[in-house]
Amino acid sequence: MKYCSTCGQPVEQRIPEGDNRYRYVCVSCDTIHYQNPRIIAGTVPVWDGRILLCRRAIEPRYGYWTLPAGFMENAETTIEAAARETREEALAEVSIDGLYSIIDVPHINQVHMFYRATLLDGSFGAGEESLESRLFAADEIPWDEISFPTVKKTLKLFLNEMETGNYGVHITDIRPRITKEEPHSTSSRNTS
Amino acid sequence: MKYCSTCGQPVEQRIPEGDNRYRYVCVSCDTIHYQNPRIIAGTVPVWDGRILLCRRAIEPRYGYWTLPAGFMENAETTIEAAARETREEALAEVSIDGLYSIIDVPHINQVHMFYRATLLDGSFGAGEESLESRLFAADEIPWDEISFPTVKKTLKLFLNEMETGNYGVHITDIRPRITKEEPHSTSSRNTS
Repeated sequence: MKYCSTCGQPVEQRIPEGDNRYRYVCVSCDTIHYQNPRIIAGTVPVWDGRILLCRRAIEPRYGYWTLPAGFMENAETTIEAAARETREEALAEVSIDGLYSIIDVPHINQVHMFYRATLLDGSFGAGEESLESRLFAADEIPWDEISFPTVKKTLKLFLNEMETGNYGVHITDIRPRITKEEPHSTSSRNTS
Repeated sequence: MKYCSTCGQPVEQRIPEGDNRYRYVCVSCDTIHYQNPRIIAGTVPVWDGRILLCRRAIEPRYGYWTLPAGFMENAETTIEAAARETREEALAEVSIDGLYSIIDVPHINQVHMFYRATLLDGSFGAGEESLESRLFAADEIPWDEISFPTVKKTLKLFLNEMETGNYGVHITDIRPRITKEEPHSTSSRNTS
């Protein structure tokens, strides 16, 4: 951020009075431009004991498999966002069965939220941002081709619980790797 | 938003190629400026069977009682944000016991998240944004002086469950009122 979106003059970074963090503040009109984390909302869509994944037609991670998810928009709820992303990416209508995971990713200022969902009638397809969509049984998940750590973590948790059908709500986070880990490591740090 | 924060030239509202929503787009450098909901994170801090509330020293709702909560910041997790707000507003250190409520407020582009929490040693005070803090027993909650609908809804849910100690995770939303309601009405639309 270099310019004030209100008046077009330059901004500087300083700590406003009564605050304790550096913010972008306009040198001319004094508007404070706060920046906050964004929510990624998505679903774990299930049909007949299998999970619907989409193969990404866009960067980042073009060609990798993902749960349908994307940036929550203004004027919608997290559930509406999750269902909309599923409709857009997988051309699938779902009923939402409950919150499943919240995964904070603080180093990129994101909070990922996945809801458990059931396809309404088993139909799905490939939206504009997907190359294809497919239902995967538990032992068919393409672990080496999963798009993002939050998707992998959510899938791992879900598959463990799908055996019993007893689903929790998982609050966890993903931090930048400091030591080398196995690519498939899922050291959950659940807090509830 | 009137000007591009990247180059300082005017923005216009249009639907970018491949998108389906109006966005602010720079007429000069074509940067798309997305706007997304913000997270309010807070706690329901408990000590000795009572709930800690803060009386607001700032607008909006100056003088009203609230659960400690505020805008989540970049580079922190939702749990860190909830604990930080409790520290800042109530000068209280807490342990987080679990996610309690997520209340979408789509007409103001906010998602409110409250965690159940326990005071570490029973000490608390009034931070810069609070006039005072106080522990309230269930029958002492000042319902007519609660700051925000999401706080009132969370407190109502929590007090119902405090009797049993069996706490759920509540996903609900608050929409603008269309018909007149009782001020204390809590017509929960839980989805899980």
